[in-house]
Amino acid sequence: MQAKTPSDSRTIMTDLVLPSETNPLNNLFGGELLARMDRAASIAARRHSRRIVVTASVNHVAFNRAVPLGSVVTVEAAVSRAFSTSMEVFIDVWMEDRFSGERTKANEAIYTFVAVDDTGIPTTVPKLNAETDLEKQRFAAALRRKQLSLVLAGKMKPKDATELRALFMEE
Amino acid sequence: MQAKTPSDSRTIMTDLVLPSETNPLNNLFGGELLARMDRAASIAARRHSRRIVVTASVNHVAFNRAVPLGSVVTVEAAVSRAFSTSMEVFIDVWMEDRFSGERTKANEAIYTFVAVDDTGIPTTVPKLNAETDLEKQRFAAALRRKQLSLVLAGKMKPKDATELRALFMEE
Amino acid sequence: MQAKTPSDSRTIMTDLVLPSETNPLNNLFGGELLARMDRAASIAARRHSRRIVVTASVNHVAFNRAVPLGSVVTVEAAVSRAFSTSMEVFIDVWMEDRFSGERTKANEAIYTFVAVDDTGIPTTVPKLNAETDLEKQRFAAALRRKQLSLVLAGKMKPKDATELRALFMEE
Amino acid sequence: MQAKTPSDSRTIMTDLVLPSETNPLNNLFGGELLARMDRAASIAARRHSRRIVVTASVNHVAFNRAVPLGSVVTVEAAVSRAFSTSMEVFIDVWMEDRFSGERTKANEAIYTFVAVDDTGIPTTVPKLNAETDLEKQRFAAALRRKQLSLVLAGKMKPKDATELRALFMEE
Amino acid sequence: MQAKTPSDSRTIMTDLVLPSETNPLNNLFGGELLARMDRAASIAARRHSRRIVVTASVNHVAFNRAVPLGSVVTVEAAVSRAFSTSMEVFIDVWMEDRFSGERTKANEAIYTFVAVDDTGIPTTVPKLNAETDLEKQRFAAALRRKQLSLVLAGKMKPKDATELRALFMEE
Amino acid sequence: MQAKTPSDSRTIMTDLVLPSETNPLNNLFGGELLARMDRAASIAARRHSRRIVVTASVNHVAFNRAVPLGSVVTVEAAVSRAFSTSMEVFIDVWMEDRFSGERTKANEAIYTFVAVDDTGIPTTVPKLNAETDLEKQRFAAALRRKQLSLVLAGKMKPKDATELRALFMEE
Repeated sequence: MQAKTPSDSRTIMTDLVLPSETNPLNNLFGGELLARMDRAASIAARRHSRRIVVTASVNHVAFNRAVPLGSVVTVEAAVSRAFSTSMEVFIDVWMEDRFSGERTKANEAIYTFVAVDDTGIPTTVPKLNAETDLEKQRFAAALRRKQLSLVLAGKMKPKDATELRALFMEE
Repeated sequence: MQAKTPSDSRTIMTDLVLPSETNPLNNLFGGELLARMDRAASIAARRHSRRIVVTASVNHVAFNRAVPLGSVVTVEAAVSRAFSTSMEVFIDVWMEDRFSGERTKANEAIYTFVAVDDTGIPTTVPKLNAETDLEKQRFAAALRRKQLSLVLAGKMKPKDATELRALFMEE
Repeated sequence: MQAKTPSDSRTIMTDLVLPSETNPLNNLFGGELLARMDRAASIAARRHSRRIVVTASVNHVAFNRAVPLGSVVTVEAAVSRAFSTSMEVFIDVWMEDRFSGERTKANEAIYTFVAVDDTGIPTTVPKLNAETDLEKQRFAAALRRKQLSLVLAGKMKPKDATELRALFMEE
Repeated sequence: MQAKTPSDSRTIMTDLVLPSETNPLNNLFGGELLARMDRAASIAARRHSRRIVVTASVNHVAFNRAVPLGSVVTVEAAVSRAFSTSMEVFIDVWMEDRFSGERTKANEAIYTFVAVDDTGIPTTVPKLNAETDLEKQRFAAALRRKQLSLVLAGKMKPKDATELRALFMEE
Repeated sequence: MQAKTPSDSRTIMTDLVLPSETNPLNNLFGGELLARMDRAASIAARRHSRRIVVTASVNHVAFNRAVPLGSVVTVEAAVSRAFSTSMEVFIDVWMEDRFSGERTKANEAIYTFVAVDDTGIPTTVPKLNAETDLEKQRFAAALRRKQLSLVLAGKMKPKDATELRALFMEE
Repeated sequence: MQAKTPSDSRTIMTDLVLPSETNPLNNLFGGELLARMDRAASIAARRHSRRIVVTASVNHVAFNRAVPLGSVVTVEAAVSRAFSTSMEVFIDVWMEDRFSGERTKANEAIYTFVAVDDTGIPTTVPKLNAETDLEKQRFAAALRRKQLSLVLAGKMKPKDATELRALFMEE
């Protein structure tokens, strides 16, 4: 299987915030944004693997900026690292002011997908070659996130998560 | 403000998995489950605070079990710890076999909400008193999760996250 | 088949009133509430019978209280009486004031479901044992409602509906 | 206020049964049909009253025929009797075989609406003049149904429901 | 195959404009109206052909009148001309003022559908006999529209579109 | 007002075809695609004008390729010509085979939007400078399409549509 780059899987989903997706403050519901990001990220994972993909986990997501009704929201997703049968997908969310056109970063999130065959059995995926500086940085951090995920799931002992552990031992 | 217990905010949302919510394997889309959990958890946070609440972050979520079309899914949410203006909500997801009625744990997730007034300004919330053993255990772990969240957001230095650091220093 | 109790089928569906479900007065559409109650009640009937269930009829439903946008609505359904292949399900609807947290009865309704096999043929269901006073009262009234339903459908002569007839003959 | 006829309010809503509206047997969910009938009937009540209308009650509804995915469903609603501030609306539901074009009666239902002003206060509506035999028959039966509704709600004593009582006293 | 008239396929879809279907000016989104017209027109084409039908093209559509939130909208569709395996469907859209009940023409549109068998192969449809003056006028214009459509798709040379060409040669 | 290029308004909306959007052949409903194209095109028009925009018309749309359930669909929209207060938007639709990743052109469509102020009054928009060959070709054809649209609406006499007329006079 030939390695791919983040550009090969990059997925752009631009859409409006509709009235049925807003909370009492007239901002986009957190849950709606989580669902949109899942759809965009699953397309990126499919483009990388050319397989059916299922959401395996969602990394920590922070909602820093409220996204008001009527905004244009762009969800941009690309595979940031491929493991044996799973892929980490990095998602950047931008919103655009209706009048000035100014574009602000609204969110970022990291989802993990597993590629499966028609019977749901995990199947191997191509490797990922990071190209830009940002892609390389996200690629490197992905391993630390995977260890954290295994530790939190009780599938790896904290002391074996060497990369992650180093982070907390620094002066 | 009088302290509350997790029972005061416990929210149960039982519903079907409908055809419009499924992926190509005929299982519930990860994104749909994230959205349902957000609605249930926001009701729990509102019951605790009696305020408008907005999603602040989603902790690590693992999708361990596929939830097939036609399943009955129960999302159960309760506040697990209250901080000054924010609340951590713990969510357990159960699914029920259509014929045997057997109930299996499908997922768990942790969301954080902030209570705000009508203009969106954060506002203080009642304290939480954990009662059962499970509630106490979740209450204790909440502080470690909050530190992890601050570290990941670059708002706390790893070495200052004393509780969290201890976890990685253990033999 | 072992008899069951209303607790065995009790189904709780708590959710928000979203902007897409409201009428020009900004209250929940009657039709949306009818659909939610149908979903909750069908889950209760399925829990009692462990079969596919289809809505057979809806008893008289009165909408006494408007349910405003943004309310938390709890639909609580439980089988109130089982006949040979059909089940009467009693549904209580509560709404919760966003700020005071005060809980008010918004509605009650009664739906009937038939249990069917995969080809749609009606199939027998377990008996129901009412336990609490309220459950016993609803169990008793169910027979009268069934007679009324048969009379209205022209499948029973009014004079044969002895229980029902007694109601109108009282001084 | 000038009296109106059922033709003045007759409302026809023809639409498909979409995949997102079906149960595990691939038939239209009872709850979806209840919601469609509510929308059609509310338009009929608005055409009669030229006011905002809210659903007051749903009479007994029997689901005699399953409506399969892909069917064409016609919901036809018209005011059957007007009281002081409320209107009874009679709804006939037809389904059409995709290939033969044969039209079958799938259901009928009766909803009651109240006309209100912008603040939600009930307001008087025009009288209804029934014209055809079927309209006259439905007009006459409406009074009996209203009595039944009052009796079931505990707002009228059975012995005072003279029209209704007669029904059960017949030999 | 016996010829049919426009009345045989006439389809009426009356429904409300719901909050989830409106743009920032609180009027019905153009895209939502296009989708409703497609559903109504496909039912008309199915009634004419008694076959599965798929949208082949949408003729020029002008949105002359904004349709406000809460309006009652009536979409009326009927086959205007049948070709060998395709049907032109003419759609008239009316809106109704909530209070005066005044009915205004909001739009008209022309869609073309192809009848297909279960494998998607085009299949012949009955001829159409126009009856009223308006139906005859629409029937005649349909040929000119078909030529325009073929010219625009590059499947007919402008000089062979004799009917259409005449239109531009007139003094 | 400074002129803009098509790149300034280019909008990419990539999303899945979900089960609730398909017809009986399991392909995307024409009406759903029309609605998606309207949302993408309206964002492009808004990016060009920085105003509220409303759909004015839809040019001829041909559905040449069926888009199956589960496909990834990319709708790409950009302003192709600006007139005084209106903008023509050209939309290209691509679909992607789930397994080979092969990308095929599924459709193209042309919508026109008008920029309006908060009270709905048309307001002037920046000019458009086409850059690439394809953009220049679409820019030139836009005038012919505008004439056709005026002729079809009866607002311009065929003999005055000089550009369009030339098309039909060629040998």
